[in-house]
Amino acid sequence: MLSQVYRCGFQPFNQHLLPWVQCTTVSRSHCIQPSVIRHVRSWSNIPFITVPLSRTHGKSFAHRGELKHAKRIVVKLGSAVVTRGDECGLALGRLASIVEQVSVLQNQGREMMLVTSGAVAFGKQRLRHEILLSQSVRQALHSGQNQLKEMILVTNLDFHDEQKRRNLNGTLHELLRMNIVPIVNTNDAVVPPAEPNSDLQGVNVISVKDNDSLAARLAVEMKTDLLIVLSDVEGLFDSPPGSDDAKLIDIFYPGDQQSVTFGTKSRVGMGGMEAKVKAALWALQGGTSVVIANGTHPKVSGHVITDIVEGKKVGTFFSEVKPAGPTVEQQGEMARSGGRMLATLEPEQRAEIIHHLADLLTDQRDEILLANKKDLEEAEGRLAAPLLKRLSLSTSKLNSLAIGLRQIAASSQDSVGRVLRRTRIAKNLELEQVTVPIGVLLVIFESRPDCLPQVAALAIASGNGLLLKGGKEAAHSNRILHLLTQEALSIHGVKEAVQLVNTREEVEDLCRLDKMIDLIIPRGSSQLVRDIQKAAKGIPVMGHSEGICHMYVDSEASVDKVTRLVRDSKCEYPAACNALETLLIHRDLLRTPLFDQIIDMLRVEQVKIHAGPKFASYLTFSPSEVKSLRTEYGDLELCIEVVDNVQDAIDHIHKYGSSHTDVIVTENEDTAEFFLQHVDSACVFWNASTRFADGYRFGLGAEVGISTSRIHARGPVGLEGLLTTKWLLRGKDHVVSDFSEHGSLKYLHENLPVPQRNTN
Amino acid sequence: MLSQVYRCGFQPFNQHLLPWVQCTTVSRSHCIQPSVIRHVRSWSNIPFITVPLSRTHGKSFAHRGELKHAKRIVVKLGSAVVTRGDECGLALGRLASIVEQVSVLQNQGREMMLVTSGAVAFGKQRLRHEILLSQSVRQALHSGQNQLKEMILVTNLDFHDEQKRRNLNGTLHELLRMNIVPIVNTNDAVVPPAEPNSDLQGVNVISVKDNDSLAARLAVEMKTDLLIVLSDVEGLFDSPPGSDDAKLIDIFYPGDQQSVTFGTKSRVGMGGMEAKVKAALWALQGGTSVVIANGTHPKVSGHVITDIVEGKKVGTFFSEVKPAGPTVEQQGEMARSGGRMLATLEPEQRAEIIHHLADLLTDQRDEILLANKKDLEEAEGRLAAPLLKRLSLSTSKLNSLAIGLRQIAASSQDSVGRVLRRTRIAKNLELEQVTVPIGVLLVIFESRPDCLPQVAALAIASGNGLLLKGGKEAAHSNRILHLLTQEALSIHGVKEAVQLVNTREEVEDLCRLDKMIDLIIPRGSSQLVRDIQKAAKGIPVMGHSEGICHMYVDSEASVDKVTRLVRDSKCEYPAACNALETLLIHRDLLRTPLFDQIIDMLRVEQVKIHAGPKFASYLTFSPSEVKSLRTEYGDLELCIEVVDNVQDAIDHIHKYGSSHTDVIVTENEDTAEFFLQHVDSACVFWNASTRFADGYRFGLGAEVGISTSRIHARGPVGLEGLLTTKWLLRGKDHVVSDFSEHGSLKYLHENLPVPQRNTN
Repeated sequence: MLSQVYRCGFQPFNQHLLPWVQCTTVSRSHCIQPSVIRHVRSWSNIPFITVPLSRTHGKSFAHRGELKHAKRIVVKLGSAVVTRGDECGLALGRLASIVEQVSVLQNQGREMMLVTSGAVAFGKQRLRHEILLSQSVRQALHSGQNQLKEMILVTNLDFHDEQKRRNLNGTLHELLRMNIVPIVNTNDAVVPPAEPNSDLQGVNVISVKDNDSLAARLAVEMKTDLLIVLSDVEGLFDSPPGSDDAKLIDIFYPGDQQSVTFGTKSRVGMGGMEAKVKAALWALQGGTSVVIANGTHPKVSGHVITDIVEGKKVGTFFSEVKPAGPTVEQQGEMARSGGRMLATLEPEQRAEIIHHLADLLTDQRDEILLANKKDLEEAEGRLAAPLLKRLSLSTSKLNSLAIGLRQIAASSQDSVGRVLRRTRIAKNLELEQVTVPIGVLLVIFESRPDCLPQVAALAIASGNGLLLKGGKEAAHSNRILHLLTQEALSIHGVKEAVQLVNTREEVEDLCRLDKMIDLIIPRGSSQLVRDIQKAAKGIPVMGHSEGICHMYVDSEASVDKVTRLVRDSKCEYPAACNALETLLIHRDLLRTPLFDQIIDMLRVEQVKIHAGPKFASYLTFSPSEVKSLRTEYGDLELCIEVVDNVQDAIDHIHKYGSSHTDVIVTENEDTAEFFLQHVDSACVFWNASTRFADGYRFGLGAEVGISTSRIHARGPVGLEGLLTTKWLLRGKDHVVSDFSEHGSLKYLHENLPVPQRNTN
Repeated sequence: MLSQVYRCGFQPFNQHLLPWVQCTTVSRSHCIQPSVIRHVRSWSNIPFITVPLSRTHGKSFAHRGELKHAKRIVVKLGSAVVTRGDECGLALGRLASIVEQVSVLQNQGREMMLVTSGAVAFGKQRLRHEILLSQSVRQALHSGQNQLKEMILVTNLDFHDEQKRRNLNGTLHELLRMNIVPIVNTNDAVVPPAEPNSDLQGVNVISVKDNDSLAARLAVEMKTDLLIVLSDVEGLFDSPPGSDDAKLIDIFYPGDQQSVTFGTKSRVGMGGMEAKVKAALWALQGGTSVVIANGTHPKVSGHVITDIVEGKKVGTFFSEVKPAGPTVEQQGEMARSGGRMLATLEPEQRAEIIHHLADLLTDQRDEILLANKKDLEEAEGRLAAPLLKRLSLSTSKLNSLAIGLRQIAASSQDSVGRVLRRTRIAKNLELEQVTVPIGVLLVIFESRPDCLPQVAALAIASGNGLLLKGGKEAAHSNRILHLLTQEALSIHGVKEAVQLVNTREEVEDLCRLDKMIDLIIPRGSSQLVRDIQKAAKGIPVMGHSEGICHMYVDSEASVDKVTRLVRDSKCEYPAACNALETLLIHRDLLRTPLFDQIIDMLRVEQVKIHAGPKFASYLTFSPSEVKSLRTEYGDLELCIEVVDNVQDAIDHIHKYGSSHTDVIVTENEDTAEFFLQHVDSACVFWNASTRFADGYRFGLGAEVGISTSRIHARGPVGLEGLLTTKWLLRGKDHVVSDFSEHGSLKYLHENLPVPQRNTN
């Protein structure tokens, strides 16, 4: 027998470039001679790196997060991926980007193999083209067949002959060892005898089925960790796609077989899909994980393979290990229905749940701290000291958490169901606008486990369903805190309203579930907020990513007040988003005692000063000039700039600010009011520290966050930010046609009084 | 002299595929012999189509919208585009997608040419690679040089020799005539003698400058309409990128030269960029339009060329013709500052502006109708009758428009600056939450010109800046209506608050201006809304794309009321989004007189009935079964389904509804309240027609739209939907440290009364 070496890369074929494996007969044994290795080496574009297999093959992966550990990966490209949808030849761009992805993964130290049956589909296209153009059908069919056969490499027979099999195996292993990406062409095309009146039929018959099973065979034979099957189907659906309830199955378990269906528009067809599933299950049984996904979408084809390997939710993942908990989709549905039940409880009942949770936090203290200790032990040495501090819980932390929860319970009384507007539209036709929960919130928080009960209490108080996604490092603490939350919810039968999402779910995947989630609230660093804002597809995100707060010291500012206000705004807690970043000083104040006093105070407080360009031009020896007037230092650093007057200050704030919090210091009430009215920021203050911009200090009861968005909630957000409204109209038998020009009724549109907010 | 024929497509080179032009010596004249043409024809993948030049070359295009008329296009690929950023060879995926785009454009009947100097950069990479791996530097340099020289095709010298130039010209023209895409390799690499201690220096010196000017020369020489220069720079910036004010220049005019700068991160460098601009200006002078853009972004490289030709805002467009009006960016700034001024006017002043506009609509009627007549004449025969009707204005339309405006003026009094919340935080520290405008709105409307004054009035009433984007077919009408709006605004010096965007601006481009626009409001078909929601990047869109309204007829419904309510909801105006789509009937009502009465009424009204699956199962001869229970018919068609009880009805609505408007018909108050509380829709009614879901009928004064979003505004939206809030805090010298644990002050958090809404 002859062993074969495969030349990887594209090869020109009839003016097209095909991803061919070129067979080169090298030896009678399956060992490759050194000269051939050198030859092959010169063919390969990829630097030679030897990476030890980090994974022992044997069992398939349990969930997508593990796929990144896949060492050996087979990518099977279906005909629909290799050829263009318009039957105009090869999908060159797609193929090239697939080659690039495979190369990236290979360079990560993986062993990649490509399996394609594209030649057949492509040959078919060429054939059809030529048939239509010039040749007689029979002729074309005949010559096409011959052309194709020359390129067939692996057929079913190759697996039946033990020697062939061993050779194939050995050759592929050798290639992999040399860090070469073998491209294997599987083919089992059968051209049946043409029937009368169906000239093209022979060309159409390609047994895709066998190509998939060949790929699966090869994958198992080669002890592959992961088989990625790309075609023009999205994956498996739970009901016919396009029907009311059709959903793509994210993870498929062998037992679920009865409920499977698939994309109808695909070129694959029913039979092909069944075969795909059969092949996938066969590979799974052989210990190879499988993902079936669409490789033809122009927007994702450039990263579909790397996405799958990174564990992203693309297509359908086949797993033998059914995880114990519900899927995130099921959790979303539970949060939705649980939230709806929560919303219809009496305000007192919601408050009761929160009080019960507060009690549990102190009653079950020992268990909580035990779980927290586990987290701390596991994080030891892996997390920096400040992060460890955030991760750690203590009796006093739990106590103040419980106090906070009771405050939320108190402020929850007046939130859901508050009447905002009442209108008499006509006799016996009354309209009411009432507050209702938004729906399902997704709160993403970092290492602080104390975030969990706090956020849960806010959701409960506002009657929202909640999906919680916490940091991996706090897994033990989060688990127990979530169990206690559900225990508290149980007292009114709404246990499922708050769901803790499994740590293996990727944040990016969650941010795409726009049908399940109504609002995302990231709680953590501004980097987290920015990342989430970027990742969220079609779901609003409540948060602020920057706070560039200004204080304008007017020419009529009081000497005594200025230093006090600047010190509090800048030095009290410089890392806060409501800390001062830029001090704008009226030109007339330069070189006055007031100015010197500010500078002295800043020196004492060890605040580093950056001079704005105008300020710098006034100084002989200026401090470092600012790189940008739009900087959030978040530290003991301050930009000082000179302005001509209040209007100039406002212009500066509009140009360089982040619309967070801006302050004027002046004794002139007119100037102050001008500033308050004209500055277009979420918070505008007069003679008060920037640091008051905070939900608790504003008296909003519970702070959900601070928003610099102009839509929905703006500035410090209390429970109201978690509410929307609905309109209730109560009539007798009112129809609009009665109100038409010649109708019997006229609109009254009387505003009716609404109850005031509780005033103390 | 020898003429040359260029083989287009990729060619393998050292295991890589290079976009080469292969020179084939064919003849001593510049005429190509038929045998060669056949030869070339067999090389070409693109069907031979002969399209007459639709454009006479001579003058460059004035604006981007005209670029789609470009017949002959040269695409210059810089080294950074052809090679990968990580210096690991060719950017195969990028190149392939460029080839695909060029092929798409060629197949549209254009004459495409590719110019690349990529060989040099690639050769350089290979060279460096090999140098690092094995060979001595000098050796590698030498052999690399030789390799490269073999591939150099066009150098500066080719343009100096008249005969060479004519041959090149003739050859390229012949190729274009044959519908072949020539790929021209320009090269002017100069390898200076290596200096001591800088072994790699020679390899680094590539005179990018000359390659750009060569491409420009070739483009002008070939009388090209458009030259697209792709590299790794975004285009020209008005100040150094990364600085506070840096903005990409969309259109560059030769006179603006002094203000130009560019991307610092690029491989091109300062000198290269200057040369790029010089080459572009040179081409522009020769009558060839130029776009300089980034061809390396992974997300856009798949469509950067086709986007440019479609007129999208990509990179910097060079134009000799400075348009009369401001750019859309300038308009955005004017709307922002104009809006801010508008917001600080007294409510009475804003109302005055609107009243004045209403007066102008009737006073200037003749001029308006004259402009409208022009639109109608131009649209005649091109628009369908219903669209013409929408386009046309009349005296009565203008009169009722004026009445509507006066209503908006009335409701504007209570909108901006309304106090929503007042809190005493401490002695002399009072917090106020007041309504303020959102900022800058973009309203996109279709062929109805009456939309313009209406929307303008809403923006003025709410103190928002406004960008208006109207349909092209109403250009004349819109222009005069906008002039009148600005005239009205002038009475209080805020003329610029409302801007009419030029018709040549693409909606998709506008939807990307997230730094300029705070809210997009599409006014038109649900298709328009869907398109805008899809196109809007990072900007909220207020609108609703579907209305699947339900009416649940309870077992305790009154016979008299049901038919009345169903008829009004379904038949009064079936195209409206608040029309009934699904009737849910309590099981007990089947085969009762009430049920027969409904069916009879629907028959009389000629409503086509679709049976839900449960309803169908009750019938012997069922009407057509629904394809989906989630259908918005928008016509005299109705889905009927059977439900077991009110809970079943609610479940159905939650599963298949669009959260727009849902109604219960019952005489049982408890059932009604259960429905009102549990149905999670924007509007939930009891014994009233779905058609009441409307801003005017709700008494909101002026309707901005209907929103099915859960964030910000929900249901029918009045002026309030165009408002957000800001927090005003007035203190003496309050700092937060005084409120700390050991501070001297305590938070009071007293709710203070707020003024009630005017009640009549």
